[in-house]
Amino acid sequence: MMTKDDVALLILTAKKAAGLTWTGIAETLGLSPVFTHSACVGMNAFPQAKAEALVALLGLPDEAVGVLAQSPDKVFAQTVPTDPCIYRFYEIVGVYGPTLKALIHEEFGDGIMSAIDFEMSVTRQAHPKGDRVKVEMSGKYLQYNVW
Amino acid sequence: MMTKDDVALLILTAKKAAGLTWTGIAETLGLSPVFTHSACVGMNAFPQAKAEALVALLGLPDEAVGVLAQSPDKVFAQTVPTDPCIYRFYEIVGVYGPTLKALIHEEFGDGIMSAIDFEMSVTRQAHPKGDRVKVEMSGKYLQYNVW
Amino acid sequence: MMTKDDVALLILTAKKAAGLTWTGIAETLGLSPVFTHSACVGMNAFPQAKAEALVALLGLPDEAVGVLAQSPDKVFAQTVPTDPCIYRFYEIVGVYGPTLKALIHEEFGDGIMSAIDFEMSVTRQAHPKGDRVKVEMSGKYLQYNVW
Amino acid sequence: MMTKDDVALLILTAKKAAGLTWTGIAETLGLSPVFTHSACVGMNAFPQAKAEALVALLGLPDEAVGVLAQSPDKVFAQTVPTDPCIYRFYEIVGVYGPTLKALIHEEFGDGIMSAIDFEMSVTRQAHPKGDRVKVEMSGKYLQYNVW
Amino acid sequence: MMTKDDVALLILTAKKAAGLTWTGIAETLGLSPVFTHSACVGMNAFPQAKAEALVALLGLPDEAVGVLAQSPDKVFAQTVPTDPCIYRFYEIVGVYGPTLKALIHEEFGDGIMSAIDFEMSVTRQAHPKGDRVKVEMSGKYLQYNVW
Amino acid sequence: MMTKDDVALLILTAKKAAGLTWTGIAETLGLSPVFTHSACVGMNAFPQAKAEALVALLGLPDEAVGVLAQSPDKVFAQTVPTDPCIYRFYEIVGVYGPTLKALIHEEFGDGIMSAIDFEMSVTRQAHPKGDRVKVEMSGKYLQYNVW
Amino acid sequence: MMTKDDVALLILTAKKAAGLTWTGIAETLGLSPVFTHSACVGMNAFPQAKAEALVALLGLPDEAVGVLAQSPDKVFAQTVPTDPCIYRFYEIVGVYGPTLKALIHEEFGDGIMSAIDFEMSVTRQAHPKGDRVKVEMSGKYLQYNVW
Amino acid sequence: MMTKDDVALLILTAKKAAGLTWTGIAETLGLSPVFTHSACVGMNAFPQAKAEALVALLGLPDEAVGVLAQSPDKVFAQTVPTDPCIYRFYEIVGVYGPTLKALIHEEFGDGIMSAIDFEMSVTRQAHPKGDRVKVEMSGKYLQYNVW
Amino acid sequence: MMTKDDVALLILTAKKAAGLTWTGIAETLGLSPVFTHSACVGMNAFPQAKAEALVALLGLPDEAVGVLAQSPDKVFAQTVPTDPCIYRFYEIVGVYGPTLKALIHEEFGDGIMSAIDFEMSVTRQAHPKGDRVKVEMSGKYLQYNVW
Amino acid sequence: MMTKDDVALLILTAKKAAGLTWTGIAETLGLSPVFTHSACVGMNAFPQAKAEALVALLGLPDEAVGVLAQSPDKVFAQTVPTDPCIYRFYEIVGVYGPTLKALIHEEFGDGIMSAIDFEMSVTRQAHPKGDRVKVEMSGKYLQYNVW
Repeated sequence: MMTKDDVALLILTAKKAAGLTWTGIAETLGLSPVFTHSACVGMNAFPQAKAEALVALLGLPDEAVGVLAQSPDKVFAQTVPTDPCIYRFYEIVGVYGPTLKALIHEEFGDGIMSAIDFEMSVTRQAHPKGDRVKVEMSGKYLQYNVW
Repeated sequence: MMTKDDVALLILTAKKAAGLTWTGIAETLGLSPVFTHSACVGMNAFPQAKAEALVALLGLPDEAVGVLAQSPDKVFAQTVPTDPCIYRFYEIVGVYGPTLKALIHEEFGDGIMSAIDFEMSVTRQAHPKGDRVKVEMSGKYLQYNVW
Repeated sequence: MMTKDDVALLILTAKKAAGLTWTGIAETLGLSPVFTHSACVGMNAFPQAKAEALVALLGLPDEAVGVLAQSPDKVFAQTVPTDPCIYRFYEIVGVYGPTLKALIHEEFGDGIMSAIDFEMSVTRQAHPKGDRVKVEMSGKYLQYNVW
Repeated sequence: MMTKDDVALLILTAKKAAGLTWTGIAETLGLSPVFTHSACVGMNAFPQAKAEALVALLGLPDEAVGVLAQSPDKVFAQTVPTDPCIYRFYEIVGVYGPTLKALIHEEFGDGIMSAIDFEMSVTRQAHPKGDRVKVEMSGKYLQYNVW
Repeated sequence: MMTKDDVALLILTAKKAAGLTWTGIAETLGLSPVFTHSACVGMNAFPQAKAEALVALLGLPDEAVGVLAQSPDKVFAQTVPTDPCIYRFYEIVGVYGPTLKALIHEEFGDGIMSAIDFEMSVTRQAHPKGDRVKVEMSGKYLQYNVW
Repeated sequence: MMTKDDVALLILTAKKAAGLTWTGIAETLGLSPVFTHSACVGMNAFPQAKAEALVALLGLPDEAVGVLAQSPDKVFAQTVPTDPCIYRFYEIVGVYGPTLKALIHEEFGDGIMSAIDFEMSVTRQAHPKGDRVKVEMSGKYLQYNVW
Repeated sequence: MMTKDDVALLILTAKKAAGLTWTGIAETLGLSPVFTHSACVGMNAFPQAKAEALVALLGLPDEAVGVLAQSPDKVFAQTVPTDPCIYRFYEIVGVYGPTLKALIHEEFGDGIMSAIDFEMSVTRQAHPKGDRVKVEMSGKYLQYNVW
Repeated sequence: MMTKDDVALLILTAKKAAGLTWTGIAETLGLSPVFTHSACVGMNAFPQAKAEALVALLGLPDEAVGVLAQSPDKVFAQTVPTDPCIYRFYEIVGVYGPTLKALIHEEFGDGIMSAIDFEMSVTRQAHPKGDRVKVEMSGKYLQYNVW
Repeated sequence: MMTKDDVALLILTAKKAAGLTWTGIAETLGLSPVFTHSACVGMNAFPQAKAEALVALLGLPDEAVGVLAQSPDKVFAQTVPTDPCIYRFYEIVGVYGPTLKALIHEEFGDGIMSAIDFEMSVTRQAHPKGDRVKVEMSGKYLQYNVW
Repeated sequence: MMTKDDVALLILTAKKAAGLTWTGIAETLGLSPVFTHSACVGMNAFPQAKAEALVALLGLPDEAVGVLAQSPDKVFAQTVPTDPCIYRFYEIVGVYGPTLKALIHEEFGDGIMSAIDFEMSVTRQAHPKGDRVKVEMSGKYLQYNVW
């Protein structure tokens, strides 16, 4: 049985061979680059039609369709990530976590931002002192139940 | 000697007594709510003039000015945060960390988003199926040195 | 400033002195025993009216109303709990976690059970070979977003 | 020697090929879906007759009968699970663990809910604001010995 | 409110002042030394009558009766214990754990020895090459449920 | 070079094929079941003659004699064991460790029970309310040196 | 697909066979020894021209050029390093970390030394009582943003 | 008895009151800023004469002389430091540790850089694109013994 | 009740006031310096007569005799020690642990060196290239039991 | 490329086949048994001539000479070792670490025992109550630098 890791490796190889970018693949599929990349590396599930389109675009084996459409096990390392590019986001959550919580509570009440009904983008922001990385997240507000 | 924790407690008490909000305090100071909250709880340093304005606004003791303007020790717990509102952001970094890295590399090259030359906002996004929390981050792109 | 821990201690002392039970307090408040206990020990926030009713019932100081109605920091130990009564639930999640996930996916699709829009009860189940503890949980199904 | 992991992989492959569901397999065996899934993935032992029925149903090799009927080593990761669907149950045990203990003690005395003489189900609960996942657990009450 | 730790300290002081031993106290109470010590240091709950007898024997304050009869939170360190006398038992469980499991399964079936319906003793065993410590444990066999 | 793990696997396979039990093998060798099992799985060393007898009994290759007679590296996981049957013993050491130490000190003085000059047994204890598992340990008392 | 680890092994083998040193390779490439070694073992990315020069110098397969020029995942162990030569640097950061922070703040203000716009050298310092290792680091000062 | 922590707090308070800098204090003592700061915060021992000079300079109590001259217990947290200014040095050791080792071995042989016979400085390096932090370390090379 | 920590602090203060050394105190008591220091800081128990002699020598309160003669809880940190003087011994055990085991097995058989029937000394060894620290340990060989 | 682990395995096999002991091999090489064993298992580097002598003695392939003479990566597990023979040394460092430090400081001053300019031996000490293991360590005293 093919796994999500097997398919991810096939995608990376085919993408390199075809000279494609994540942004380009995402556009072809009609999805965002963040969702597209995360589903390609096995952290999200493609809808059936999108899985088929990706398999056609990259010339992957048919079996890959089912694997890409399957619910993933979202397993990530729980130790502090060491790669500096990823670590900085961890540092931001550590430093600003209580601030995010305080401002959500002030604006919305006793609840949280959903990480399931959620979307995110990464874009370039031109800036005279050097361009900037812009990350935008949006998640549904969920109120705690009282029963 | 007064510590940043002592001042944070004084601020929380005075804010509650005066019926103020973080957004309101931020507006008065001419700063963002995220920076204002994080500097009030001791995770950032206020510029001298802003520290003085805050002390005046909340009627804090004079000694607090120096403490608020001092470089903080940004100490945060390194175990997974348990509060669900904060944990969800940790989950997002865990699931989408490699995606953020891949898209930054595709768009900018071999480098990272700075967490020092950085800013963030939290806002409400109206939505027919339930309002959403919008979090925006912007950090300067830093390229790795070759020497 | 009074904390949630301070109020929890006042509640435990008053409850003991008055000879009340969690079930009894919950009935008086018109809430479930699980929610009532967890909000009393600082893991949930009482609606304003319920906080007032509890303060009246147990003769707590007025300041406790605001504290009980405040959003909690849900901080719990992340090491394996040692108390055998709590550990057994941890063991159940460890042994049956992948089973819960597989059956949720089979019945609902790619998503999760919410722990926010959530409720739980604990009841006695009479049984000829020895009574049983029955625990029931119900949480809203949340589907992963595709964007 | 075939291991429980080997057999679990054979079951997953055969189940997919035959288009079966966990609920369907459980019904054929006359067992619950929770027990069936957990025994198939190696976390419980099938009674001999059930192991034989499963092997017949899925066309597994004869050697699998003995493996399925064998006492398992219930090994699960002890770090916090990262998959959001499983993590939410861990969060529930963390937040409500002391509440479960307090209510069991109030109703039953000094003891615990058994995780050995135990059963569990997962069902769909229709709801106008979105269907809900219902999880029910029942375990024998065990009183601490005094000697 | 007096805690189990407060009472344990009162017991240790009174025991030392009165020149009593754990074995002697246990005999007076009509309980075993292991149960008596563990309930005195807060790891078990005395039945009401035994708590009263202990309070009378050692001249403790009346409030201690309720504390001694209360269900304990059995919290123990989860790192390897460093004291050599305790560590050796940890080493035994580490080395012989799989052996205990294999022999229980061979003799009884798919189940465990209860740590709740459980008792233990520690006695001296005379021996020509040096006396030995004898530790005996007995726990009810519990069979896994099939449902 | 054959390792202790290789030989353990050969023993398990041969034992299953021959329909033997640990108790039966132990009797044939003139050793206890606990020692026999732990030496078979590589946690103790067989005396040369016993290693030869075992190899003859199970028809193992000659090279296994030397491996079975070799000093083992007693490596065991140091995280809390998850299998419920083994975990309960860990829980017992956690809850009763300080009690074992206090009673050994009361009876013997400043010292420990040896885990090297040590033996253990596991037997069935008939009981009207359900049979019990009896575990007996005996280790030489070792007094701390004063120099 | 060839990985950075595969290429690192090819480099080590070719370097040994050719009798080259890191310093020699660095000189040929017109880069520093620190950058050269770290990029060879997969912790930095070579500019395209340098990657081509290295592949030519050591006779590596063409595919290695792309791998050497690719952004690395900077994954390092997060437990304390055990090798004494590396551990001493960890000890230095542990002992002098707060000193480095205090002196940077005194000289520059509220900010940090960049580890991205960064360079380092290792050289021999002759000394009558025994030669010394000299390590020099230089990183751009980054000021915290106020917004 | 006064501890090193007590004296460190007295020094910080007196330094602030007197408007001194670490560099200024170091110059007065005839020592480097790095050694001076680390000995003030309790991570190194001042020679007797330097301890006396510091006590005179800052008007500390006489007892402080002995405390400052005493061998310290160099205790530092072993989890990853969270403050970004300190963390970056940890990141450098993680990324470049094997490189430091390889270059020391290439230049010196089988040995290490001493962290005991060691010195360090932190200085400002003017730079057109923004000033840089320069850190220099020098430690005696120690060769492994062969015996 | 006075604890071993209380007495250790009294000893350190009295020793400093009297200008004594550990070696001097040990000689007066007729014990080794290693045992004397470890029993003074609470890691060993003095025989009754030695406890009395120490109390007389340093003018400690009478209650200290019983505390010094009591069995200690040998609790030590289990994380890697950070103080360089202690860490080096940890490094030695890490590097040479398997060597110690192999040589003990070669010389003695399947057993260990006792850490209970054990003694140790620390002395100065004059050496032309710089004096050396000599540490000598001696522990009874204990053979594993076969039963 | 042959690794130190590969060579260690070849040495163990050849040593067993030739019926040699570590002490015997050490004598032939003119080195101590401790150094010899640790260099054979990859924790130290043999001088070139000794590496050649060992390769000749045991009939190893020529490539092994370079591997044995190479600087090792001294990687050891940082969790507490479980093998009782090694653990006892860990226990000794834990219990007596602060004592070693105090006595070194009393005799030598503010410094440490080197683990690099270091040697060790393990010998048998005849004793009427049972032979003893004697371990002797000697390391150069290193004084902390003041600068």
